[in-house]
Amino acid sequence: MERNTIIADLGRRLRLGVIGGGPGSFIGAMHRHAARLDGCYEIVAGVLSSDPDRARLAGRELGLSGDRVYTGVASMLGTEAERGDGVDVIAIMTPNDSHYAYAVAALEHGFDVICDKPMTNTVAEAEDLHRKVRESGRVFCLTHNYTGYPMVRQARAMVEAQELGDIRLVQVEYVQGGRAHEAYADPSGNLPWRFDPAKGGPSLVMGDIGTHAHHLARFITGLEMSEVAAEVGTIVPGRLVDDYAGALLRFANGARGSFWVTQAAAGVENCLRIRVCGALGSLEWMQEQPQALTFKPLKGPSQNRTPNGPGTHPLAARACRIVAGHPEGFPAGFANLYTDMAEAVVARRTGRAANPLALCFPNSLDGLLGVRFISSILESSRTGTWVKC
Amino acid sequence: MERNTIIADLGRRLRLGVIGGGPGSFIGAMHRHAARLDGCYEIVAGVLSSDPDRARLAGRELGLSGDRVYTGVASMLGTEAERGDGVDVIAIMTPNDSHYAYAVAALEHGFDVICDKPMTNTVAEAEDLHRKVRESGRVFCLTHNYTGYPMVRQARAMVEAQELGDIRLVQVEYVQGGRAHEAYADPSGNLPWRFDPAKGGPSLVMGDIGTHAHHLARFITGLEMSEVAAEVGTIVPGRLVDDYAGALLRFANGARGSFWVTQAAAGVENCLRIRVCGALGSLEWMQEQPQALTFKPLKGPSQNRTPNGPGTHPLAARACRIVAGHPEGFPAGFANLYTDMAEAVVARRTGRAANPLALCFPNSLDGLLGVRFISSILESSRTGTWVKC
Amino acid sequence: MERNTIIADLGRRLRLGVIGGGPGSFIGAMHRHAARLDGCYEIVAGVLSSDPDRARLAGRELGLSGDRVYTGVASMLGTEAERGDGVDVIAIMTPNDSHYAYAVAALEHGFDVICDKPMTNTVAEAEDLHRKVRESGRVFCLTHNYTGYPMVRQARAMVEAQELGDIRLVQVEYVQGGRAHEAYADPSGNLPWRFDPAKGGPSLVMGDIGTHAHHLARFITGLEMSEVAAEVGTIVPGRLVDDYAGALLRFANGARGSFWVTQAAAGVENCLRIRVCGALGSLEWMQEQPQALTFKPLKGPSQNRTPNGPGTHPLAARACRIVAGHPEGFPAGFANLYTDMAEAVVARRTGRAANPLALCFPNSLDGLLGVRFISSILESSRTGTWVKC
Amino acid sequence: MERNTIIADLGRRLRLGVIGGGPGSFIGAMHRHAARLDGCYEIVAGVLSSDPDRARLAGRELGLSGDRVYTGVASMLGTEAERGDGVDVIAIMTPNDSHYAYAVAALEHGFDVICDKPMTNTVAEAEDLHRKVRESGRVFCLTHNYTGYPMVRQARAMVEAQELGDIRLVQVEYVQGGRAHEAYADPSGNLPWRFDPAKGGPSLVMGDIGTHAHHLARFITGLEMSEVAAEVGTIVPGRLVDDYAGALLRFANGARGSFWVTQAAAGVENCLRIRVCGALGSLEWMQEQPQALTFKPLKGPSQNRTPNGPGTHPLAARACRIVAGHPEGFPAGFANLYTDMAEAVVARRTGRAANPLALCFPNSLDGLLGVRFISSILESSRTGTWVKC
Repeated sequence: MERNTIIADLGRRLRLGVIGGGPGSFIGAMHRHAARLDGCYEIVAGVLSSDPDRARLAGRELGLSGDRVYTGVASMLGTEAERGDGVDVIAIMTPNDSHYAYAVAALEHGFDVICDKPMTNTVAEAEDLHRKVRESGRVFCLTHNYTGYPMVRQARAMVEAQELGDIRLVQVEYVQGGRAHEAYADPSGNLPWRFDPAKGGPSLVMGDIGTHAHHLARFITGLEMSEVAAEVGTIVPGRLVDDYAGALLRFANGARGSFWVTQAAAGVENCLRIRVCGALGSLEWMQEQPQALTFKPLKGPSQNRTPNGPGTHPLAARACRIVAGHPEGFPAGFANLYTDMAEAVVARRTGRAANPLALCFPNSLDGLLGVRFISSILESSRTGTWVKC
Repeated sequence: MERNTIIADLGRRLRLGVIGGGPGSFIGAMHRHAARLDGCYEIVAGVLSSDPDRARLAGRELGLSGDRVYTGVASMLGTEAERGDGVDVIAIMTPNDSHYAYAVAALEHGFDVICDKPMTNTVAEAEDLHRKVRESGRVFCLTHNYTGYPMVRQARAMVEAQELGDIRLVQVEYVQGGRAHEAYADPSGNLPWRFDPAKGGPSLVMGDIGTHAHHLARFITGLEMSEVAAEVGTIVPGRLVDDYAGALLRFANGARGSFWVTQAAAGVENCLRIRVCGALGSLEWMQEQPQALTFKPLKGPSQNRTPNGPGTHPLAARACRIVAGHPEGFPAGFANLYTDMAEAVVARRTGRAANPLALCFPNSLDGLLGVRFISSILESSRTGTWVKC
Repeated sequence: MERNTIIADLGRRLRLGVIGGGPGSFIGAMHRHAARLDGCYEIVAGVLSSDPDRARLAGRELGLSGDRVYTGVASMLGTEAERGDGVDVIAIMTPNDSHYAYAVAALEHGFDVICDKPMTNTVAEAEDLHRKVRESGRVFCLTHNYTGYPMVRQARAMVEAQELGDIRLVQVEYVQGGRAHEAYADPSGNLPWRFDPAKGGPSLVMGDIGTHAHHLARFITGLEMSEVAAEVGTIVPGRLVDDYAGALLRFANGARGSFWVTQAAAGVENCLRIRVCGALGSLEWMQEQPQALTFKPLKGPSQNRTPNGPGTHPLAARACRIVAGHPEGFPAGFANLYTDMAEAVVARRTGRAANPLALCFPNSLDGLLGVRFISSILESSRTGTWVKC
Repeated sequence: MERNTIIADLGRRLRLGVIGGGPGSFIGAMHRHAARLDGCYEIVAGVLSSDPDRARLAGRELGLSGDRVYTGVASMLGTEAERGDGVDVIAIMTPNDSHYAYAVAALEHGFDVICDKPMTNTVAEAEDLHRKVRESGRVFCLTHNYTGYPMVRQARAMVEAQELGDIRLVQVEYVQGGRAHEAYADPSGNLPWRFDPAKGGPSLVMGDIGTHAHHLARFITGLEMSEVAAEVGTIVPGRLVDDYAGALLRFANGARGSFWVTQAAAGVENCLRIRVCGALGSLEWMQEQPQALTFKPLKGPSQNRTPNGPGTHPLAARACRIVAGHPEGFPAGFANLYTDMAEAVVARRTGRAANPLALCFPNSLDGLLGVRFISSILESSRTGTWVKC
């Protein structure tokens, strides 16, 4: 389905201002595709570089008006808050250590906020930001984009509908190879920000992908983790930051799980994979083939569930733009978060009730739990014992 | 990559006017996603319905200004051609029997044209439209969208680079199940347009999907078909229009092939699949897993080629927005045609040379050959003999 | 299940004599694995070479007693027919041109016969052999071994049980790469027998693999082909024998089909694949993953059927030796033919009724229809018209 | 390849006596298929039941001579050791608690021994049996049959040849659903032996499948585990024995790993899966598609390695009976252990050197390490800390 009706109530597209995502950014382009796909946003302002020339060039390429290309966050937030046609939503896609400050500032100016993950680098920041979001009444979306895939939402809906029965076992892994070959170990060198613990946060692998795996498991199962036994470390010789983490998981309902993430698996592309087993059946999904969700019932043949295929729940159908057999993909999944956010923002601004199916996008509580999870994993790794989440 | 630089030379987005794709249209939403994803277009005008109320509502949902919601094609073309900020490009997504007239009219008003497939319902129309496109100097894109997938372009580039050696064998199939269950046979009834031969063209299955398969084989191999032996027919009892077609293919270079298309394969979603075998190796691709291209060399292990994975050719890399391991999908592939079109249009308007990699999108010659192919298939089926293409 | 009970009635294993399959033979080893796996046979005699030294060595490696290693077929048949402990069953695994003579001779000596495919090189021989089999009352098994796979039998059983409804469309292909690289074109050279039309039969590709594809389609659908439009030819330059064949198929019940076989697909291993579509659903199977049978119902999610998985029909269950999840494979599938043959032979000899589930193995009528099919394909290719089967 | 030459030196098949595997046994049939497939053994004696009638019937179905159907182990071992044509090899396929006593007795009578896994129920027994094997000079094979698959051997050979570089990360899982639905919890009931801790050993899931996963990881990587942090437990309500185990692994060379096994994953068939990542690439294999080995090099496209496909190492080629594209399977993999065992036994008896490629089958040291691994896992689970292996 096309989400035309979302903005119809507002009578115009939401105006988006972006912080970060300038030249050379991978994630910046992802956010912009997501903002554009469904036509709910127009990108009208941005801090794309602190260098005026680079900012201007990047702004022109994005079709921004020259006067809305900023070189500082405070300047953009202040100016746009004053304009009659100022931005509605701020999207933050900067290195991890700045998420907190920019998000807080955006909220203080009254904007709704989209923020890249992990939410913050410390638990204290995460707690404070979560509190500020609640107090502000503004909409906050953390871009754990993988939960925007239709079949991830189908999985959540099937669990919720008790099609798996009580959840007993969860295996989640996120295995990449992008950092199998480079150590970036020279402490005196000019490190990319991710390889600099001060900017990238306490654990590279956990911040980059561990929080995605953590959120995916919670999103699908609806269960919280209660305890972990973990090891985090560095396997590529000479590296300064973590590149793998493993954990055993205990869930609040008694379920058990396994967690494995690494960016040092040579040759592997982007293998985020989950298996959830309940009393009545098991689900399997992997990001590299996102349109495939395998449901293995306790009784009866294994089934291939597909986007908009038979048995699609409304939560998943809402995340599909096309009839069955036409795989969407990463940009479309990412866009689902932006579009759900738009639904929530338009509802807030117009006073109508939001479609409840739109409200499963990750929020500041999810962000806080993710940052706490990193902390628990690190503590367990240090102590060699089980640690509460 | 993000294609920001495409519109930078123009200093603004291209303005798009759409004909068709109103309420209930599947393909209309596809076109609009494609237009939006890369930020090269803004949709500013449209004929979304001949009913004023329905048109107004649909226009509002798309964020169109009220005065640019039209109820007739002539009216939109005339008005927009006069406006200083009028549309640049017309996109046609109406039933097949109107493609010819609307495309000709759009060209006559000086617009560049995007048109859904099949290009026309008759060979005579196709020949005339192709001639008019060439005479007009305007850019024409026929939305055989499957050739926008990165791995289809990778396949083409590998063939072109002689990585498969001389092409010997081609198998192409397009198997769907969407029309396995409904006969739509009542000639007095109010048939959907596709099931009405007067609107849908001489062969439903060939127009709907046969031309996609035909174009895919030509696009990847760079070879033209010279002769076919075919059968087209109806397998679902009581149906009035074709629902399957099979053919043996002879290519101009001596290669041989097999062609099989149907919409009556119960339960199959959207299985467009091709295998191309050359002297040095074979390629296999299927639309249901569009990010997978299997290359089986004559010597050496079979390889899984992926978007932006090792060995990606520039033609494919240009069609990727993301690093390896993040599957894009149907909307992104469709958008590649729109964005390539934008490159060509901006180049035409600014006088700069277009990026040659952008110019492989299907054009009016491809459209003409597709319509001729339908005609050859039908003739062979009638006569039971080999027919020249 | 293990088929222990089959031989229990006889009180001993069946004694097998083999013709061919000596040193360097691929298919000989296949037959012997098949004979041994279930313990229904012991290989006690053989013509493994016409050279006494080579025969003796090969016999010793197989554990044959020295006096039962023969260098001529007539000698073995005559001697074994006289022995009190002589062979029960003769298995023929020689070049195609000798199948007829050896099978006839074996029948004349009263043996039950297992014969490799194609049954004969000419239609006249096939008709005569089929007649002789019927007159002899002996059991005859033609080793179209792919129909021994459990999931092929499951497919047959599902069709028979009307789970697919009326069959409408059949696609069958058998694509290999083993002859993509060698022309074997020198007419003066010492050609391998397959590349010598006098020994290999009128069409290499049809005899080698085309008959497998033909039998597979008939076996699963239970339908006979009535007409074909075909092309057979040579695509690897300089080759003297056929290496590809394509055909459009008309079945007796009105179903339509596509047929494509080649051994010149560089890099492809052994891709025998079939899709059968009925009014209520479609089945897909491919030999390279023989334990997977995909059932796509008209309504409901696509299903992965597995050996001994839920919904397994008795015909398939009988072909499984292990619980679900333990893939058997080619030797086990081949063995199913041998073991079914044993069931039929023991039943004949002991006068009890054979298990009807054992009696679907390919027989001399299947062999005759296969040879006729080759003939029809060749005639259609010559005349460029539809030909009756 | 067919392994005819193995027994040629002996001039006859090896004579096998079986303990266990009588009526209703799953694993008994597996052993017998394995023994028969390559023609290296004939099954001549057996203890198939302690009940004379049942034993006689089972023996007859296997084609045993009546005087070699025994009802007690001591009787068979004693009698056969005396016979001139007595058995050469004893194969033990009884409940776990009897492996030790029967294996010791068989060794004491001078037999070579094939034993099902886990080797014993206690570490003390395992240590003693391992010592006795070494002292006896007899050949001992523990049937971790999954390492008989050609692609598992290919993986081992690739690691050994440094094609992956130093091994850094290992993920191994063995997930089944066979015990998802039954609790077998009634302590007063007549439990199947596996569900009775006295017979099944200290941990059902670890003994049944955990040792397979442990052995697979060691077999492929050539690395020993040095420490584990683990949890073992019961997730199906009311069950008395373990049904899941998870662990973090530290290997002797510094590599890290994840281990996850369960029999309570509803609907999953037999998913033994491993991923091994080295500095130069990663390997992935799963038992449900045993013919597929994916090699993802650090640089270059991901490759599908297949049995006898390009790049096959001699260790894997020796495990293949057929050319590429003809999947073998579980019986064939299991048979590779029996046939390698035969090679070792014939070499021992004839005094020739065994083919070194045959000597990778699991032996008593592997069995001992497996039993120790169970013990370490259980201790870590009790203490909540890391435990040395």
